[in-house]
Formats: sequence, C-alpha cells, structure tokens
Amino acid sequence: MRFHTRKWVKPEDLNPNGTLFGGRLLAWIDEEVALYSIIQLENAKVVTKHMSEINFKSSAKPGDIVEIGIDVVKFGNTSITLSCEVRNIMTRETIISVDTITMVNLSEDGKPLAHGKTQIEYIKDRLER
Amino acid sequence: MRFHTRKWVKPEDLNPNGTLFGGRLLAWIDEEVALYSIIQLENAKVVTKHMSEINFKSSAKPGDIVEIGIDVVKFGNTSITLSCEVRNIMTRETIISVDTITMVNLSEDGKPLAHGKTQIEYIKDRLER
Amino acid sequence: MRFHTRKWVKPEDLNPNGTLFGGRLLAWIDEEVALYSIIQLENAKVVTKHMSEINFKSSAKPGDIVEIGIDVVKFGNTSITLSCEVRNIMTRETIISVDTITMVNLSEDGKPLAHGKTQIEYIKDRLER
Amino acid sequence: MRFHTRKWVKPEDLNPNGTLFGGRLLAWIDEEVALYSIIQLENAKVVTKHMSEINFKSSAKPGDIVEIGIDVVKFGNTSITLSCEVRNIMTRETIISVDTITMVNLSEDGKPLAHGKTQIEYIKDRLER
Amino acid sequence: MRFHTRKWVKPEDLNPNGTLFGGRLLAWIDEEVALYSIIQLENAKVVTKHMSEINFKSSAKPGDIVEIGIDVVKFGNTSITLSCEVRNIMTRETIISVDTITMVNLSEDGKPLAHGKTQIEYIKDRLER
Amino acid sequence: MRFHTRKWVKPEDLNPNGTLFGGRLLAWIDEEVALYSIIQLENAKVVTKHMSEINFKSSAKPGDIVEIGIDVVKFGNTSITLSCEVRNIMTRETIISVDTITMVNLSEDGKPLAHGKTQIEYIKDRLER
Repeated sequence: MRFHTRKWVKPEDLNPNGTLFGGRLLAWIDEEVALYSIIQLENAKVVTKHMSEINFKSSAKPGDIVEIGIDVVKFGNTSITLSCEVRNIMTRETIISVDTITMVNLSEDGKPLAHGKTQIEYIKDRLER
Repeated sequence: MRFHTRKWVKPEDLNPNGTLFGGRLLAWIDEEVALYSIIQLENAKVVTKHMSEINFKSSAKPGDIVEIGIDVVKFGNTSITLSCEVRNIMTRETIISVDTITMVNLSEDGKPLAHGKTQIEYIKDRLER
Repeated sequence: MRFHTRKWVKPEDLNPNGTLFGGRLLAWIDEEVALYSIIQLENAKVVTKHMSEINFKSSAKPGDIVEIGIDVVKFGNTSITLSCEVRNIMTRETIISVDTITMVNLSEDGKPLAHGKTQIEYIKDRLER
Repeated sequence: MRFHTRKWVKPEDLNPNGTLFGGRLLAWIDEEVALYSIIQLENAKVVTKHMSEINFKSSAKPGDIVEIGIDVVKFGNTSITLSCEVRNIMTRETIISVDTITMVNLSEDGKPLAHGKTQIEYIKDRLER
Repeated sequence: MRFHTRKWVKPEDLNPNGTLFGGRLLAWIDEEVALYSIIQLENAKVVTKHMSEINFKSSAKPGDIVEIGIDVVKFGNTSITLSCEVRNIMTRETIISVDTITMVNLSEDGKPLAHGKTQIEYIKDRLER
Repeated sequence: MRFHTRKWVKPEDLNPNGTLFGGRLLAWIDEEVALYSIIQLENAKVVTKHMSEINFKSSAKPGDIVEIGIDVVKFGNTSITLSCEVRNIMTRETIISVDTITMVNLSEDGKPLAHGKTQIEYIKDRLER
C-alpha cells in the first residue's frame, strides 16, 4: 500500500467531542479513491459504487497528521477495486480501514465503460512513453 | 424507517462531474447517525465503530433535495446498531443505503459504557414523564 | 409545526465565544425554507423575498442537537408564506423564531409565476396519485 | 452609512439556481454586525438579540462583488442597535437591507452588561488618546 | 493604504494550535486583491500572477478582528501591482504584509489584455459621470 | 522533491471564473509545509514565518488533480526552510512554486526553540530505532 495524501487535523475537522469527525474522514477517503481511480483509469468520470464494511479502529485529535493509503485489489472490465487505510503518520496506528471500494468507469453519458486497464501504471512511465 | 433531516444539494456539495460528491453524502450520514444515537442513548459521547457495506445506488444533482432515514436494528449493551437510507425526497429513489452502523456509547474517559436502553424512546414522552 | 431537519452543533458552527454562530443558524433556516417551498410548490426556482422580525431567544453550545420546524402561514398567488422555529431537540427550548418568511415562485426567466397551490401536500400522496 | 467589508461571490456561495445563496448573505451580515459591535462596545462578548424585517431586494451572481454597510441607530444601556445594507459595489444596487439589528453586550457570565458608550468612536482616536 | 474588509477570527479559521491558520489568511488576501483589481480594472477576469516575499509578523487568536488594506503600487499595461497589509483592527499591529502582488488583466480567451487604466478610480466618481 | 498530498479540484475550490481559486492553493501549501515541518521537527508547534516570492505559473480547472511537493532547503537552529511546488499530476505542469518557506519551531510558550535536527528523517527509521 502506498500512502500519499496527508491531512492536518484542524478545528474545522472535529466533532463536538473534540476528536476527528468520522464524516470528515469518510469524505477524505472518498476524494482519495476518486482521484486515484481517475489517475489509473485515465478518465475523469469515475464514481464510487460500493464500499465493503468500514472499521473505525482508533480516533485522531487536533494537531494529529494522518496519511491515506490506497492499494489496487482488482482491475475489472468497467471497474477498479481498491483498498484503503488511514493511519496516524507518526505512530502508524490505523484509524480506519476499508477492504474493498469499487469504482466504476463511466462514459460521457454516464454508462459503465470498459477502461482497458489491467495493472497499476505510473504517470512517470506514461510521460516517458 | 423515519426520515428527518433534509439537504438541498448546493454547488459546494458537488464533485467535479457536477453530481453530489460521495464524500459529502457519507459525512451527512455520519452526522445523522451520531445525533440519532445521542438522542436515543441520552449521552453526548457516542462514536461510530463500524459500518456494514455501502451501496451507492443512484446519484443526485444540484437542486435535488435528499432526506436521510434512520432505523434502529438493535440495542446492544454498550452500543446501538442503526440502518440508514438516503433518498431523493421527490421521487423516493434510494441514493445510498447502509444496513448496519454500530455506534458505541462512551464514558467520560472514553471507555465503552452500558447505556441501559432497550427500545426507541421519543423525546416528547421523556419530557412528559 | 413539523420539525424535520436536525443539526449537530460542531466546532465549525461556533462563534469565537464558543456558542452557535448566529449567521450559521440563519443559513440553516434559509436552506430549510427554500427546500420546503420547492417541495410544496413543485418548482426548483423559489427565492426568499422577505423575513419578518427575528428573535434570538436562546443560544446553543457545541454538541447540542437542534431541529428546524416549518409551518405554512399562507399560500399566495405567486408566493408562499412560512413560519419557522429552531429549537433544542432535547429540551424543546426555542432558539430562534421567525413569524413569516415569504418565498416567491419564479419562472425560468426569473419572473414571479403563479404556482396554483392552495394547501399543504404530502409527497406520499402525490406519488400514489 | 459606512461600507467596509467586501465579498467576492464564489461558487461556494451559490444556491443551486446559480445565484447568491440567501443564507450565506445572512451569515455575512451577522458576522459584520457582530464585529462592528465588538469594536464599538470594546467587548468581545456581544450577541445578536433581534433583527427587524429583512427585505431581499435583488440578487447577486457569481463574480459580483458586494459590500456591507453598517450604521448605528441607537446606543442603549446594555445594547447597540444597528442598521445594515448589502449592495453591489459596482452598481450600488441594494441586495438586502435590515432596518434594525439589536446586539446585546454581555458580561463574562453571559448577563446583559451596561457598556457606557453613547456615540460612535473611531479606533484611530482611541489609539491617540 | 485603505483598509476595507474585516474578518472575525472564528473557530473554523484556526490551526490546531488555536491561532489563526496562515493558509486562511493567505486565502483572505488573495480574495481581497482579486476583488480590488476587478473594481479598478473594470474587468471580471483578473488573475494573481506573482507575490513578492511574505512576512508573517504576528498572529491572531479567536475573537480577534482583522482588517485588510490594499494600495496600488503601479499600473502596468496589462497588469496592476498592489501592496497588502493585514492588521489587528484594535491594536493596529501588523499580522502579515506583502510588498507587491501582481495581478494580470485577461481577455475572454485568457490572454493578457491592456486595461487602459493609469490611476485609482472611485466607483462613486464613475457613477456620477 | 517528494510529492505526497493530492487534491481533486472541486467546485468549492473555484474562483468565479471557474478556475482554481489562488487563495485555496495558498491554503493547501500552508497546510502542507506546516505538517511537513511538524513531522521533521517532531514538534506540533511550528509556525510559518516567511515565504519568498510566489510565481503563479499556470492554473487548474475543475476535475484536475494536483500534487504538492516539498523539499528541505536548510535546517536552521530554531527553523527549517522548505521549498514547495504544486503541479498537475497528469501533465507535470507546474502550477505554483515557492523557493523558500521558513518555518519556526516554537516552545510551549511561543518562543523560538532549538530543534536539534540537521537532516531529513523518515518516520519508518524512527519507528525502527
């Protein structure tokens, strides 16, 4: 799993009990899986279709820095399935994990579209082609 | 299932494709299950512990009005399990559904705490007691 | 008066004195009256035209849950007049009340448009017609 | 009336019809009367108590620049009454106006507190004293 | 230098250490120089091209009121160069200052466009012409 | 330079011309340099002190994915100096660059504090020590 995006837990991200609001965390994950899929599938129109069960393992407090990791579970025909983990960057403690998130590749008119991808690609390699 | 909270899909709620951002939807759900649990358990310190799989069934576009429904699946000893559905208020089409969301009741120092509740209560009845 | 939408007062909703920011409360009300009018008038283009005086009766603190109630005062020819109350869901204490809020029904090109409605309708009944 | 604060109407400020969301406008006004009162009364704990009727005279579209004007209507014993107008900075067309907004000066423990002010003061003069 | 826009430092504007988040401050400045340029150049399409070095001189805490001042350094052919200072409105202490911010005037298709302005204009004078 | 954090340009990040709002970009940078410094200096209280000139080289449009890169220019006694670049993740085109950003390490009472660091450390290595 590769961790890229980092977030600094700020007051605007808290629930009234002073810890990281779970809804904010879910929104961060959804943005990360969306942008990861767009990069891999080279298509801007990708939507979240399904998430497997979500475990909230630990919390985060103001000032904590968290990082979001994504891995590819499977390339489907019109979809891509990812796994995701958010952890505390300093302690490596897992905050939340989701085993599978299925993203669907859509055509301009919103229908599932075959994407032709079968493995992870790196932008660096694409640019050098 | 009882539907209470309503949201008007505004430009700030959209993804770059112009439909409702999935992360926003998940944040709305997490707020609704949190406040519902706080009301039922009469305790401000309740946290999301687990969500079962999530199906994104349809989308919403700017100007749509959605409503969020919650039902109680089970009262545990220190937890409450809810189900949730978000739908388009006009067409009743389901946008997203989550079968079980487990919320844990915490003590002041963050430990699971027995809540003593076994059935849905209405605030009206509490106030009349 | 029927109360639907519920809000959990989070850190992002506070003024620097640590209580619910009045401007946030007014924004919540404006969204609720807009979406209520859109539902009743079955037209997405409805604008706030006038609010009667507003009384800020009590405040709310982080973690409080508030609910927003709307009632119809009058159906006009091109408008609908609503009343609104926001209260603490647990104590039923009124936080803010507005006696009349006039919403105007607009045509595509932004002119007042007769809406033909004379009484409250329920979406359930519309769908069963 | 003196106009100070200026706002640039951005996508995040719009309602789904693409014009300035009324709730955002009300939030801007509430912040401006709060900070104006804090400056005049030299007390950080000032709350909105009452607004007279509000007329939504015209709208604003993305890219418009609006300015917010405040005037003092009256210095009370524990309160200050302001009037407010928001207008398009380029055309001077009024967008919204509120004749009286009553702000109450509070003590540390939240009780109305005499502020001892009877006229508008300028910070420049205070600093030169 | 003329100071117009005022901001009330609210919880949503803070970093995790409880002081004004620098990024929020920079966003406030960027909005103010954009709208100032739009007013002066009478063109809605103006973009930030360059900022000289930025000194963060002091901080702000929740409840502080800050004001943003702008001055024109130079009218170029297709650009305008501004200076900016943000200060605490009560103490006049400087929070941040930027010596030069260059804004470029663009045509509809995004190319630099001569604006024909050579001096500060006041909207009042324009409207009286 | 190592690029970590990725952002998906959403409608809430746009200026009224429909491109990425420069102020949002500056806020993203300020958060990234803050969290990077906190990680390196192993101290949560780090503040932005100075930014060298900023060049806005190109823009971004809704749906673009940008990534933020940071490098260490110098370890001072109580400070760390970073450089930053934001680029389009797909095309590698630079959007904005800042040559030096000086962050100061503070003690609990807000005074500059020697941090004892002289080179980049990786959390992985720290955890294995």
